Amino acid sequence: MDLRVDITLAGCLADAAREAIRPHFRTPLDPERKGDASPVTVADRAAEEAMRAILNEAAPQDGIVGEEFGTSEGLSGRQWVLDPIDGTVGFLAGRPIFGTLIALLVEGFPVLGVIDQPILGERWLGVTGQQTTLNGKPVHTRRCRELNGAVLATTGPHYFDDHQGEHFMALAARTDHKRMVMGGDCYNYAMLASGHVDIVCEAGLKLYDFAALVPVVEGAGGSMSDWNGDPLHADSDGHVIALGDPARLDDVVEALACTH
Amino acid sequence: MDLRVDITLAGCLADAAREAIRPHFRTPLDPERKGDASPVTVADRAAEEAMRAILNEAAPQDGIVGEEFGTSEGLSGRQWVLDPIDGTVGFLAGRPIFGTLIALLVEGFPVLGVIDQPILGERWLGVTGQQTTLNGKPVHTRRCRELNGAVLATTGPHYFDDHQGEHFMALAARTDHKRMVMGGDCYNYAMLASGHVDIVCEAGLKLYDFAALVPVVEGAGGSMSDWNGDPLHADSDGHVIALGDPARLDDVVEALACTH
Repeated sequence: MDLRVDITLAGCLADAAREAIRPHFRTPLDPERKGDASPVTVADRAAEEAMRAILNEAAPQDGIVGEEFGTSEGLSGRQWVLDPIDGTVGFLAGRPIFGTLIALLVEGFPVLGVIDQPILGERWLGVTGQQTTLNGKPVHTRRCRELNGAVLATTGPHYFDDHQGEHFMALAARTDHKRMVMGGDCYNYAMLASGHVDIVCEAGLKLYDFAALVPVVEGAGGSMSDWNGDPLHADSDGHVIALGDPARLDDVVEALACTH
Repeated sequence: MDLRVDITLAGCLADAAREAIRPHFRTPLDPERKGDASPVTVADRAAEEAMRAILNEAAPQDGIVGEEFGTSEGLSGRQWVLDPIDGTVGFLAGRPIFGTLIALLVEGFPVLGVIDQPILGERWLGVTGQQTTLNGKPVHTRRCRELNGAVLATTGPHYFDDHQGEHFMALAARTDHKRMVMGGDCYNYAMLASGHVDIVCEAGLKLYDFAALVPVVEGAGGSMSDWNGDPLHADSDGHVIALGDPARLDDVVEALACTH
């Protein structure tokens, strides 16, 4: 599969999102609430609109799945999956560690993913069969020999329901608890791809939250799966494990399952 | 009190810490563990040593309280309080939102505080009786009319014991829960000073964790206190509330006290 044109296009999308988002960072914004009460801002909408305008021009046959403006099916068997601001809550709190997520699915499988940080100018690019890069330079996950030495990240316990939280805590208790990091959204997966974090564990993610992460993490040497260790796909239920060292998968799945 | 010389000196300290820390960011580090199992790196030590060397030369009569190398009393009634890397866990996870904290205490009261982010080149300076600045430009906290619209930040629930966690959750439940942010360490207080976060609530902070925050937050229009609403001082027990809008203090103290 030759994705060179798509890689260029994904770069244009990320550039457009940056341009739409940057003027709004750390300005007074009055977020609206979506159905689940999560906030959405003019910056989220402007960035998705800018990306859609480019796709409608450059790839009108492809479908689009966007966080803010829904799904168009397309005719090509290819879909662009867009999350203009992953981490709107952190964006609103002034933190420069939110990200724009862009994925290309072919027949439902993510083959290209971008995590872009508009303020810091950091762009992770993952493509099936290629080494993941940060601003053009290869990045690698790190090895993790033992679960009890692993650095675990998650955006926050308040994103788990009680049941999920119990399982997460069972995992957390077996990792290097004193080095667990909270917050971060997609930036945790970028840091895992770059070898600074060992495990990211979350629940409740939507396709637009995780599709772009898969090529980035896997192309850096890591793995992504659901909480049973099964591969993620377009209909996954949003329980996500990212591992820098795929050799720890059995340990993590076992720890997550064990709540007594 | 004329602090102009001290402001210049604090800037030199922050510059020196930046220079010591930056080469280590996102490099493989092998952290050691302190008594409480929290990690410490060569970057923490190098930055504190660089600051101590400057103080020994420029202000030999002043005392020093440093996170990594302990306390020297001094003869002047003035103490410099240094935390070379507040947020070592986040620093090790590759996040550019840790900070160097520098405070000057006079007769036990923090009269000058710096929060410096070495990677992003952001420096908040707070001085008693002056408007807080970020890289020389004035910053202001924002008003918060109702607790249920407040954005609450804390580094992580795993830094609370069960009892503290229960009180924190009682507060969280009365704020805008969908916008709560986790992680961030001192950066949360900087974001509060700049008007992007309304409340930071933490426990277990040491003098070197909170001394610098007081002039930064108060000089931006906010307030800092313990969980009873009483002022912080050198012997405070480490329960800290920062408010962007001091008018919410009674609401926050009441919410924290109410766990049934």
